[in-house]
Amino acid sequence: MPELRKDPITGRWVIISTERAKRPHDFASERPPRRGGVCPLCPGNESMTPPEVYSIRREGEPNTPGWDVRVVPNKFPALKVEGSLGKSAHGIYDRMNGIGAHEVIIETEEHEKDIFDFTEEQLFKVILSYRVRIQDLKNDRRFKYVLIFKNHGREAGASLEHSHSQLIALPIVPKRVQEEMVGGYNYYRFRDRCVYCDIVDQELEERERLVDDNAHFVAVAPYAPRFPFETWIVPRHHSAVFETVDDEVASSLASILLTTLKRLNASLSNPPFNYVIHSSPFNEGEVEHYHWHLEIIPKLTKVAGFEWGSGFYINPTPPEEAARFMREVNF
Amino acid sequence: MPELRKDPITGRWVIISTERAKRPHDFASERPPRRGGVCPLCPGNESMTPPEVYSIRREGEPNTPGWDVRVVPNKFPALKVEGSLGKSAHGIYDRMNGIGAHEVIIETEEHEKDIFDFTEEQLFKVILSYRVRIQDLKNDRRFKYVLIFKNHGREAGASLEHSHSQLIALPIVPKRVQEEMVGGYNYYRFRDRCVYCDIVDQELEERERLVDDNAHFVAVAPYAPRFPFETWIVPRHHSAVFETVDDEVASSLASILLTTLKRLNASLSNPPFNYVIHSSPFNEGEVEHYHWHLEIIPKLTKVAGFEWGSGFYINPTPPEEAARFMREVNF
Repeated sequence: MPELRKDPITGRWVIISTERAKRPHDFASERPPRRGGVCPLCPGNESMTPPEVYSIRREGEPNTPGWDVRVVPNKFPALKVEGSLGKSAHGIYDRMNGIGAHEVIIETEEHEKDIFDFTEEQLFKVILSYRVRIQDLKNDRRFKYVLIFKNHGREAGASLEHSHSQLIALPIVPKRVQEEMVGGYNYYRFRDRCVYCDIVDQELEERERLVDDNAHFVAVAPYAPRFPFETWIVPRHHSAVFETVDDEVASSLASILLTTLKRLNASLSNPPFNYVIHSSPFNEGEVEHYHWHLEIIPKLTKVAGFEWGSGFYINPTPPEEAARFMREVNF
Repeated sequence: MPELRKDPITGRWVIISTERAKRPHDFASERPPRRGGVCPLCPGNESMTPPEVYSIRREGEPNTPGWDVRVVPNKFPALKVEGSLGKSAHGIYDRMNGIGAHEVIIETEEHEKDIFDFTEEQLFKVILSYRVRIQDLKNDRRFKYVLIFKNHGREAGASLEHSHSQLIALPIVPKRVQEEMVGGYNYYRFRDRCVYCDIVDQELEERERLVDDNAHFVAVAPYAPRFPFETWIVPRHHSAVFETVDDEVASSLASILLTTLKRLNASLSNPPFNYVIHSSPFNEGEVEHYHWHLEIIPKLTKVAGFEWGSGFYINPTPPEEAARFMREVNF
């Protein structure tokens, strides 16, 4: 059983994944993934994954071809869905069982298609799938948060070529989201305004760091980005919770996410990147001091080692330059 | 002039390094460093670096051969040492000038020698150099913190082969240290004890996560490590400030750091790694709720992409296994 353990100093929870434990020689033998061979995410190979928990289909029975988006449990989950939390102390330390859900959102039937080559309609279906899965998992009272993320490219942690996102349902709130909740709360107490709403206002007025905007969203290079070409997609209008977006907003998100990823791809020639959705935790909901958003983080620099040890980042690309480049690039 | 900018949500400061700004094509063209050629850190090439600010020498004038450790300003500093902080607002955002010192500690004359092949005496001199430089920079009232760190191996961000550490003096406290200060303070208020002292006690009693110990230090795999084989070196006796260590403690640190790095090297065959020293900020000093330490972070897993976006880590190696391996390995 994997374990969730809490760092007694900073309060950060980590998963200690005992079932796919790595010993020293496993690291030495990490190799590039085989190309070719059989892809378990391709249509026709549905039996190679655990049975689907959700799909958007044109036709066919579950676990047969004919789908547009297919969601399956991760075959090698970092957390186990069965069991109780078993919260307990270990001396001065705190732990609980590694309870959670770990799912794979297969974003397309087409193995060769990268996300920035999707149609808007296809990306819309992916976003609807995120929404459905979060709403479903939210009914499980053991979970406090569902983390949606995508790894694109080997350097960003993708181990399969076929375009997919992942979802992890957690009995704790991830540290970065918790920090944003606290920071947003402090800002709100001080100014009686949502910090993200203030950011949207200032960025729309200055336009220097604006990458794109549409009816419901802005895409901006944040004022103090940790990484070159880091880009956030933020709702124009206050909203703390992602999974309650209606179809119109979801469609607007699909549109700006697609063009932003196309801009990123055209600017940096298919860079490895991650994106992650930050939303208000289930037990907080629609608060006035938080604002959901999507963060896109290209992985361009190798010099990210000591940052882990210090939390201190040196960014060699001013966000104004990154935003201008992405605004002006042909795609 | 580089800029320090603050994220308005989480309060994290970043350096926006305008002078070595990178545009999109710079990332595409990143290549492995040339091997061979002339090494600017080798003896005889002292004129290739800015003039030294400190050295420990067997003989010779400054900026000539005959040194054991040599400290020079970074030729491409992330921060500038001249000027005032110029703290100011930019709309809702906060910024200041990128004032700071950025130095390189050249740890040995011998180009081919990696840190785990040093003698204890040599590593002792490196640690004394850290101490001297921090004490000197502490006199500059603009600085709140000096960050000492080492990148070993290309994957951990080292751009030169010749063994060296770096130092950055900052007008702000790095986020991770700030978090530890706050976490340590909260723990102290709750329990009237230092959390690190409690960790030392529990680890010495359990011994499951203990890698090594000597007169003044323990080396442990932390209970909730973010990364496989993450290892902390913590003083046995309470002490918040690194730079006031006396020679006896510095020598004990050299000894345990050397054997720990040897164990790491033997366990994982020369892994890329970073280490970083966390110490109480200058304006806090010898407080009862903080405890300085050195964190060693091997860079073994590629799957560190979405962690940046979530602060949430999945560690595939239980610290008990890593510690046992490092305890038992022949080196």
